[in-house]
Amino acid sequence: MIPHIPSLHDDTLDEALRQRIDGKTKPLGALGRLETLMLRLGLILGSETPRLRDPQLMVFAGDHGLAARGVSAYPSDVTWQMVENFLAGGAAVSVLARQHGLALTVVDAGVAHQFTPREGLVIAKIAPGTADSATQPAMSADQCATAIAAGKNLLRQRPGNALLLGEMGIGNTSAAALLLARLEGLPIAQCTRRGTGLDDTQLARKTDLLFHVLQLHAGAKEPLEALAAFGGFEIAMMVGAVLQAAMERRVIVVDGFIASAAVLVAARLQPALLERCVFAHCSQEQAHRLMLNALGAEPLLDLGLRLGEGSGAALAWPLLESACRILAEMASFASAGVSENTAAAAAPH
Amino acid sequence: MIPHIPSLHDDTLDEALRQRIDGKTKPLGALGRLETLMLRLGLILGSETPRLRDPQLMVFAGDHGLAARGVSAYPSDVTWQMVENFLAGGAAVSVLARQHGLALTVVDAGVAHQFTPREGLVIAKIAPGTADSATQPAMSADQCATAIAAGKNLLRQRPGNALLLGEMGIGNTSAAALLLARLEGLPIAQCTRRGTGLDDTQLARKTDLLFHVLQLHAGAKEPLEALAAFGGFEIAMMVGAVLQAAMERRVIVVDGFIASAAVLVAARLQPALLERCVFAHCSQEQAHRLMLNALGAEPLLDLGLRLGEGSGAALAWPLLESACRILAEMASFASAGVSENTAAAAAPH
Repeated sequence: MIPHIPSLHDDTLDEALRQRIDGKTKPLGALGRLETLMLRLGLILGSETPRLRDPQLMVFAGDHGLAARGVSAYPSDVTWQMVENFLAGGAAVSVLARQHGLALTVVDAGVAHQFTPREGLVIAKIAPGTADSATQPAMSADQCATAIAAGKNLLRQRPGNALLLGEMGIGNTSAAALLLARLEGLPIAQCTRRGTGLDDTQLARKTDLLFHVLQLHAGAKEPLEALAAFGGFEIAMMVGAVLQAAMERRVIVVDGFIASAAVLVAARLQPALLERCVFAHCSQEQAHRLMLNALGAEPLLDLGLRLGEGSGAALAWPLLESACRILAEMASFASAGVSENTAAAAAPH
Repeated sequence: MIPHIPSLHDDTLDEALRQRIDGKTKPLGALGRLETLMLRLGLILGSETPRLRDPQLMVFAGDHGLAARGVSAYPSDVTWQMVENFLAGGAAVSVLARQHGLALTVVDAGVAHQFTPREGLVIAKIAPGTADSATQPAMSADQCATAIAAGKNLLRQRPGNALLLGEMGIGNTSAAALLLARLEGLPIAQCTRRGTGLDDTQLARKTDLLFHVLQLHAGAKEPLEALAAFGGFEIAMMVGAVLQAAMERRVIVVDGFIASAAVLVAARLQPALLERCVFAHCSQEQAHRLMLNALGAEPLLDLGLRLGEGSGAALAWPLLESACRILAEMASFASAGVSENTAAAAAPH
């Protein structure tokens, strides 16, 4: 079931937060988008001095039937190999999670590999990879519902008030591109990314293939139908986690293109969940910008990242911490005895 | 005296760093500008696995004679009041320095106020504010040389291998604008910022005033002549700190418009010091972008900040830490047993 996500609209808190931000010892608006972030975090966590607790970085991994058609520069085996790398602490996201004290959990949402159970790994495999969406839906409606429920359930069991989304899945830029094209009615050529290293010819072939996949599933117009048609299990599980996090009023830190696709699906079901989202970064690829525009997102970082894994979310995390600390700890003009703006009186002479 | 700053050019280390970055378990270039940052930090600190030690955030404060003409929306008293706020721990930069473990030192380079000596404050006052550059040079050549020497000396006494630049000085956006206009030969209207809150009329008057100041000191063409003509003491002291930091091969994290103006002056004297600089952020004002273009800078953050104090440098700091950690801790394809790019072989079919 899809929970109802109410709006966070709260005039009283909104006004109190704005006054608090404007009263700090700085010119009005001088902390730029960090001020927008303060307002958002305050509204999500329902406090003038929000505090982030026990942030959970969850990396959802799954394989894609479509990957056998060469939509990625890497073989599907890289999905499970990278899961091992995450767990061994050697991936970018592992390093960044350690740096920032983020609890890292890797979720096998549907990897074509049998993992040895261990700490930090949740095995919630729906199937060993989705079906090939070029010939049939990537998953059944039942599988899709099961994956969403699993994502909700996993999130419910986690402590803290912030979720950082990450993912791994060779071929999942294709699934995300298909979701963007279908749900936003955009031409597939605008939505197709190079993913992780295709050249021009390969990109053109990928676009042709995705065009075919879109046509094959022309009837899959509703968000959950499109999700089932295009996959993947890791995206469906992120949809569930996002819905649950939003219902629990956690801060949702959205990583890159694929995590954003999960948020796009979830937001089509419950638009108010976007009020709980902080978009970590924008890459230089057109498709990612289109995705963020579709979500009305103003990403924090613009560093040309295109790795996924939750690496962008982890890199943006200290900015969220800064926003909370400034709200709580920074002095006001009154408390610090600093003179306020006298612009109305002063003029060059 | 201006020290000679040699180029960091080192083909062997450069190549070793690139191989190390490209061998990490990620697609080539997937960490975007963080990879450029890794390369830069490695070259500055002379290591494939650079480590940042004891970062020093130094906030240089000074008053400006020109401020009496209303070039800022705030009265000059705000300079000393904000110094008190920095030291009391209530300013944005104080909060951010605590968050990131940055040693914060406030330097009275020339504030029109007598401070009570205390920990965290260095009193190195050249004079209680510069002279009014609309009628005479902001400082004498001797004062300028003394300020630069003081900045070098202060830096020499600090531990660590990274300097984060911050500043405070009501009126110092005017000095920075004048330096940019003179050293880059740009029209003053393009270089004038609203600073911290002028309206359109006030901005137009400020531009007229700065145009007059530029003409008055038409002969001050060399970097140090321009610095003396336009001020201020905090900028001159930053020039010294930057030169010394570069000579000692420290990482220099440059904050906003005013800190960048100090780097512009220093770089005109010793261009190779730019190889030691990491530019923290770009605000949305045209003048800041022009300044960064003049310096060939690619700033890390783009958050619409316009506070100064070193707040942007402090906000960018975790990205430098991330770059170093990734170089040191992230696995390679070989070490993690992850398959490499097979793009050459794969193609959609």
